[in-house]
Amino acid sequence: MNDQTKNNYDQLVKRLEEISRLGGVRGILHWDQEVILPEGGYVARSKQMAALAGVIHEKSTDPELGRLIDALHSADPDDFDAIQRCNLREAKRDFDMETKVPKELVEEISELESRGHHVWIKAREQNRFSDFAPVIEKFVELKKKWADHIDSHKAPYDVNIDVYERGASMDQIDPVFKTLKADLVPLIQAIQESDYQPDDSFLNGDFPIDKQEELGRTISRDIGFQFDKGRMDVSVHPFCGGGHATDVRITTRYRRDNFAESLYAVIHETGHGLYEQGRRLEEGDLPSGESMTMGIHESQSLFWERMIAQSKSFCSHYLNLFAATFPENLKNVGLDQFYEAINVSRPSLIRVEADETTYPLHVILRYEIEKGLFDGSMKVCDLPAIWNDKMEEYLGVRPPNDTEGVLQDVHWSGGAFGYFPSYSLGAMYACQFYNALRKSAPKLDQWIESGNFQEIKSWLNKNIHSQGRLHSTGELVQRVTGSALDPNQFMEYLRKKYGAIYRLQNLN
Amino acid sequence: MNDQTKNNYDQLVKRLEEISRLGGVRGILHWDQEVILPEGGYVARSKQMAALAGVIHEKSTDPELGRLIDALHSADPDDFDAIQRCNLREAKRDFDMETKVPKELVEEISELESRGHHVWIKAREQNRFSDFAPVIEKFVELKKKWADHIDSHKAPYDVNIDVYERGASMDQIDPVFKTLKADLVPLIQAIQESDYQPDDSFLNGDFPIDKQEELGRTISRDIGFQFDKGRMDVSVHPFCGGGHATDVRITTRYRRDNFAESLYAVIHETGHGLYEQGRRLEEGDLPSGESMTMGIHESQSLFWERMIAQSKSFCSHYLNLFAATFPENLKNVGLDQFYEAINVSRPSLIRVEADETTYPLHVILRYEIEKGLFDGSMKVCDLPAIWNDKMEEYLGVRPPNDTEGVLQDVHWSGGAFGYFPSYSLGAMYACQFYNALRKSAPKLDQWIESGNFQEIKSWLNKNIHSQGRLHSTGELVQRVTGSALDPNQFMEYLRKKYGAIYRLQNLN
Repeated sequence: MNDQTKNNYDQLVKRLEEISRLGGVRGILHWDQEVILPEGGYVARSKQMAALAGVIHEKSTDPELGRLIDALHSADPDDFDAIQRCNLREAKRDFDMETKVPKELVEEISELESRGHHVWIKAREQNRFSDFAPVIEKFVELKKKWADHIDSHKAPYDVNIDVYERGASMDQIDPVFKTLKADLVPLIQAIQESDYQPDDSFLNGDFPIDKQEELGRTISRDIGFQFDKGRMDVSVHPFCGGGHATDVRITTRYRRDNFAESLYAVIHETGHGLYEQGRRLEEGDLPSGESMTMGIHESQSLFWERMIAQSKSFCSHYLNLFAATFPENLKNVGLDQFYEAINVSRPSLIRVEADETTYPLHVILRYEIEKGLFDGSMKVCDLPAIWNDKMEEYLGVRPPNDTEGVLQDVHWSGGAFGYFPSYSLGAMYACQFYNALRKSAPKLDQWIESGNFQEIKSWLNKNIHSQGRLHSTGELVQRVTGSALDPNQFMEYLRKKYGAIYRLQNLN
Repeated sequence: MNDQTKNNYDQLVKRLEEISRLGGVRGILHWDQEVILPEGGYVARSKQMAALAGVIHEKSTDPELGRLIDALHSADPDDFDAIQRCNLREAKRDFDMETKVPKELVEEISELESRGHHVWIKAREQNRFSDFAPVIEKFVELKKKWADHIDSHKAPYDVNIDVYERGASMDQIDPVFKTLKADLVPLIQAIQESDYQPDDSFLNGDFPIDKQEELGRTISRDIGFQFDKGRMDVSVHPFCGGGHATDVRITTRYRRDNFAESLYAVIHETGHGLYEQGRRLEEGDLPSGESMTMGIHESQSLFWERMIAQSKSFCSHYLNLFAATFPENLKNVGLDQFYEAINVSRPSLIRVEADETTYPLHVILRYEIEKGLFDGSMKVCDLPAIWNDKMEEYLGVRPPNDTEGVLQDVHWSGGAFGYFPSYSLGAMYACQFYNALRKSAPKLDQWIESGNFQEIKSWLNKNIHSQGRLHSTGELVQRVTGSALDPNQFMEYLRKKYGAIYRLQNLN
């Protein structure tokens, strides 16, 4: 690398780190808004968020940054190692995305994100979709405009999907979701129609919040969350946020009549948190160390929530602790009984409470609605009816109100259209990662049964977390699992597991 | 105002608001660091704070901002109303201050502020001044450099004082503090030597933290703090921060063996908080609506803490609530007994726990040390000895360790040299404001006795809070009290109050 190239690269690093740090500031403000901010502070906060977004946009679109990227791209590629090449590639992608969108539109979106969230919380509390509808309407309009600036040759919804799941598109997702829908509907029907239905009534009862919180912290710590580099708090919708790999903030929410919902939310967010805390920090605050797509992120949360924490081995290890924490409810519950209860598959109204067989249908419903909003075939005012009809069609349940229906998710309040497919891509990746780990670690069940999660975490740290953005999603999955995305592994896993629990005979 | 001037002024407003909002973001990050941030996140946070400080500095020194200010200053002054003139004046002052300091120095100071705070917390926990000494050393070096950039003709310490107490200087403070010292030492001696010493033993005991917190919230709300536009949390050192007049965050700390300390800290910070919440918001996020100097800010906290909440009327109103909250300790305590106990004057080690007679001597000690550090007559390594000797000389007590001595205050960990004098200027202003209110409101005692604080808050809102920066400190005090800063009003108040409590006969 000659002096000029080295100098350019060093300058690029300095600028990328500045942008990353301001992004960390935004992360803290976002967390603060969800967890801490007083009611009366929202208007001012929206303006502060907009100012910060404006600054980040300025920094990300600085012509000097573009000049550095161009100069480095015309240098000899062999001058750079894999990490440097990654930083350069990511910098170019981000710069191209940012420079195509005018600052005013970025600020308008940012302000709506902040305000929209507030409107959503209120609308949800008061079960008034009509209050929230204008936010969705405006967001679709702004996100279409935004997509048009980024790539006017692609469908606006594809451009939005690409933000979260780079490389994915409706062309690729449609057939995968079609397969899932075709396979899941009969499986779910067979489960519902089975003569054997596990008893999970003991999961409902009276579970003091402080005990739930203590249990959640214990298990989160056990599986590897570092509380000296993170926090756990309460918010309307559980999420994993924060400002840095050394300041990772997960949240949950509590229901006094059900401890499993909050506990598995904690484990889910811990999975996200472990990914963030496991990022490679040696090279500084640079894109090469950042997490991959939302689908890969979700694979990490679902890996822990579903593949590990809903396994019989996990239940075996923790049943005593559960029973000691909530003796009233759990003192006479056996292992098989508990395992079956927390794996009960039953169509429900709320996505985040859904089990792994019904969850993809919640996602597919949202995916279809987002497609409809973007291609104009659906109107915002019709969403409550469309939502409820689809729920009935796919899962046989109909929300009694919008709070438990179309108003349940945080995503649209922040303009995150195109995000939902990642959940089910993540579920499929999680299953494949789990199969790969199982192959390389024959003692996996024993580790889990004895509460030794260190090896599992290390495997994820090494194979996924520390890989940052060095590879594309496709490459990463191929490297770790030996195959491409494979929905059949997921379906096979579900059929085997639920076939056993529900004593099903004739699964095709 | 012609179109060009109007256009320039509108652009100025836009820029000032952007800077103000980014400052609000910094406020939230600062609060987060004191209250929320996980241990392992400090290094990354320092870098984030530095990046944000760099951005604010860039915005505050943008040549285009300078051009607008110059253009508006050469327009006809009669074009502007009082608020516009104030914004212009403040913008010019800030711009001049900012443009004189290189960005690198600003960032170096910001990073040290963040790191220094962390070092201080550790050093304080472990009672090791030597760990903290390099931070002070470096800060004095940086703040001298900084002062030299701002105004090389003035003494560096004066330049630092001017940040917090604009217009004040050693020339003005020295004689005032000399008078206070001369008058206070005999008063404190007389108090100590009095045959009558009130019994305050019942203020020590076992006071559950949750009850203390509830009591603090109740009284803070009673006197007017709006919890929908603010919060109350716990930090190492109580402070009032936040991001906006609609998001004001006060903190306190709790000792299980003493409820009065935490309660009066809450009331003190509530006083600051009421000032912030009472700011004029109509014109947007502009300097004209911002709070005045630290001395005026402190006058607001001390007004509530000392003048109101330590009065007999206040005790009369709340004694029943105190007794109901902590019956074990307070059930047999009468009004006079309680009033005298919370006004006990006794030299102590910790500034924030000091009573109003001894407090100024804590301030004078720090002021003398800061002067010594800046003029080179004192060395950082000698500070523990100097501190302890002065404590013995002025107050007759000697700290047994540095945690209760030179390490007790947060200020130096953030580089806030020149701040301490404001506390005592504030005490004098508080007394003058109280005298003025008393004159205009003959029913003041009745209001307080009946728990009606609304009129008091309104008077402060109208006369001080909503005045923003429209006047200089001197003008404001003159307008509200009819006289200039007058240390004798303060001494007269102390002599009268403590003369009565301690049955003193021969006060000069």
